[in-house]
Amino acid sequence: MLDRLSDGALELLASPTVATVVTLNRDGSPHVSSAWVAIEDGEVCLATLDDQAKLRNIRRDPRVALSLQSERVNEWGLREYLVIYGTARITEGGAAEMLQRLAWTYLGPDVVFPARPNPPPGFITRIRVDRVAGIGAWLR
Amino acid sequence: MLDRLSDGALELLASPTVATVVTLNRDGSPHVSSAWVAIEDGEVCLATLDDQAKLRNIRRDPRVALSLQSERVNEWGLREYLVIYGTARITEGGAAEMLQRLAWTYLGPDVVFPARPNPPPGFITRIRVDRVAGIGAWLR
Repeated sequence: MLDRLSDGALELLASPTVATVVTLNRDGSPHVSSAWVAIEDGEVCLATLDDQAKLRNIRRDPRVALSLQSERVNEWGLREYLVIYGTARITEGGAAEMLQRLAWTYLGPDVVFPARPNPPPGFITRIRVDRVAGIGAWLR
Repeated sequence: MLDRLSDGALELLASPTVATVVTLNRDGSPHVSSAWVAIEDGEVCLATLDDQAKLRNIRRDPRVALSLQSERVNEWGLREYLVIYGTARITEGGAAEMLQRLAWTYLGPDVVFPARPNPPPGFITRIRVDRVAGIGAWLR
């Protein structure tokens, strides 16, 4: 699934860059939130402890988009960014463990996350990459 | 239109923070791009020289979302971000002038932008703010 992504895209996905996540509400309007991103088993993954609006949206319509802004700028001074269009599915469990691993990347090597005791098993959103866009050489 | 936004939201919109812009394709799927943001006449504005996919989308379905990531983090270490849900309309002309003003904010005080000679009049996307979300105290 990830073999179409360039090394630069994989590096950006593995960096502490917070992704903007787009799903579709029941009325077809866009829903936007931010999320940490993991790569697992060839899929782009998000971890969620609670059953959020974006999960309810994905169960009804699996079309999602992620956008990550790079620190790089192109020759015209425009900031590069990666857009991933994909199809999402949700599995139960494993969210707390994935969030702890992600917290070491996004927050720091000694952070304990989630901070709440006995977190619920939560949900993993697994995104198959269908298409890539943005500014930058993201395709292999 | 902007009187519901806090000073912090207005500051973020006036800063050199590149926005993630979501529109809806003909098939209802999300379209995502990045854009500079201006405030003009009480509306959140984007300037575009060419007639891009997001403009064609807005003419068919005016529902848009913008997301801007803040440099601030909240008490759990999560990066704050502002989401604006709005209704967009497009006017013709004035894009090159708006892009030049925005380039001074986004690129630097001496930048000439657009770099191409005799740019076309272009388009301004004007967004009425309908609702605000994200992480942070964005509402007044």
